[in-house]
Amino acid sequence: MNLILLEPLDFIADDRVVLRGRRLAHVRDVHRAVIGDTLRVGRLGGLLGAGTIVALGDEHLELAVHLDAEPPPPLPVTLVVAMPRPHSLRKVLQQATAMGVKRFVLFNCARVEQSFFTAGAARPHELAEELRLGLEQARDTILPTVEVHPQKFHRFLVDVWPSLGAPALIAHPEPGAAPCPRGLAGPTTLVVGPEGGFIPAEVERLRALGTLIDLGPRILRVETAVVALLARLF
Amino acid sequence: MNLILLEPLDFIADDRVVLRGRRLAHVRDVHRAVIGDTLRVGRLGGLLGAGTIVALGDEHLELAVHLDAEPPPPLPVTLVVAMPRPHSLRKVLQQATAMGVKRFVLFNCARVEQSFFTAGAARPHELAEELRLGLEQARDTILPTVEVHPQKFHRFLVDVWPSLGAPALIAHPEPGAAPCPRGLAGPTTLVVGPEGGFIPAEVERLRALGTLIDLGPRILRVETAVVALLARLF
Repeated sequence: MNLILLEPLDFIADDRVVLRGRRLAHVRDVHRAVIGDTLRVGRLGGLLGAGTIVALGDEHLELAVHLDAEPPPPLPVTLVVAMPRPHSLRKVLQQATAMGVKRFVLFNCARVEQSFFTAGAARPHELAEELRLGLEQARDTILPTVEVHPQKFHRFLVDVWPSLGAPALIAHPEPGAAPCPRGLAGPTTLVVGPEGGFIPAEVERLRALGTLIDLGPRILRVETAVVALLARLF
Repeated sequence: MNLILLEPLDFIADDRVVLRGRRLAHVRDVHRAVIGDTLRVGRLGGLLGAGTIVALGDEHLELAVHLDAEPPPPLPVTLVVAMPRPHSLRKVLQQATAMGVKRFVLFNCARVEQSFFTAGAARPHELAEELRLGLEQARDTILPTVEVHPQKFHRFLVDVWPSLGAPALIAHPEPGAAPCPRGLAGPTTLVVGPEGGFIPAEVERLRALGTLIDLGPRILRVETAVVALLARLF
């Protein structure tokens, strides 16, 4: 936890917060902080700054906060990922949030197991927890959005695709795919398929909607590929 | 497992192998393969190819193998990482192996906990298991080497640093660090510090030995930073 995220309900005055639970335990047990220590804090959706401990007990922690710095800039990307298995989903959300993704779109296609949509990791509360961990890691305060679209792939392309907006790069290793470009500046939609890849009919649909790219001959896990693609693209 | 790795002792003839244990179970339970099916195989340290199932029982699997393809090219990098906590170490080894790293050097410095060197994950057998998983993921056959150097940092710089050879890039976010370069072709030594960063005295030593680089204002976990750095550099 490189940042303590403050939520609206934590504030008891404009410059004063009270924390309990996980954040209190972290400050006491990991930071081993004492009264007078200063911690990095950020207001969810707002500014970063410092919080000075003015009271610390078993049940609550009170900070005097001064918020004056902008959070780091976001990546100009919409990350569109075939719903991964729960373990990968957690890693994709947490790592890509730390890297600055602000919009996730999770979709269904032939090689996605339907159980991935009903797994615990796909519940809104669990998704939000991974986003929060990513923000704390990267000292960011702007919570990403996560859209979950379990409908069939062709319905997704009709109903949701038009909302994505920016030019699409589709990560799919096959002959004819372009090497992943480097150092993009403008808004981009990045599409990442399921662990087993898109099926040929899906590739044909996508080919008409964007540019197929790949990272070379090595096959990477979805969570590794997402980090590698974001790092190379931006 | 995108590739079944074959070891010297698996071969009962030049073109015939017998597998038991984990690989047999995987072929039977995950691939749900039957006699006559063809699987992707690779000889550890050698060529890739196909294996056709000629016998399949509860205790053993026999494949007729034909090996004719080179493994994917390695990355021209020596990855030098402050010994991470066990959970991160596993991820660093597995993911960086999948991306093509062939030499790992793990070192000690002020913010490394000494227990990381004696953890289960740091035992040779456990290290090798992660490398193997990385090779299977990326369809590679060339096992990386892992050097573990628990001596103090200044001894490491005297005793081991000269063996690293290639120009060093040191990932350390601080004012004056250059943005991480993109698309390198030549041999490179990439140095990644501990979760809490190098201490100032260490940075001063390193500044004389290479170029300080960073990935921007966001702080990433070691395992995420390693993937991002490799993807951007190569």
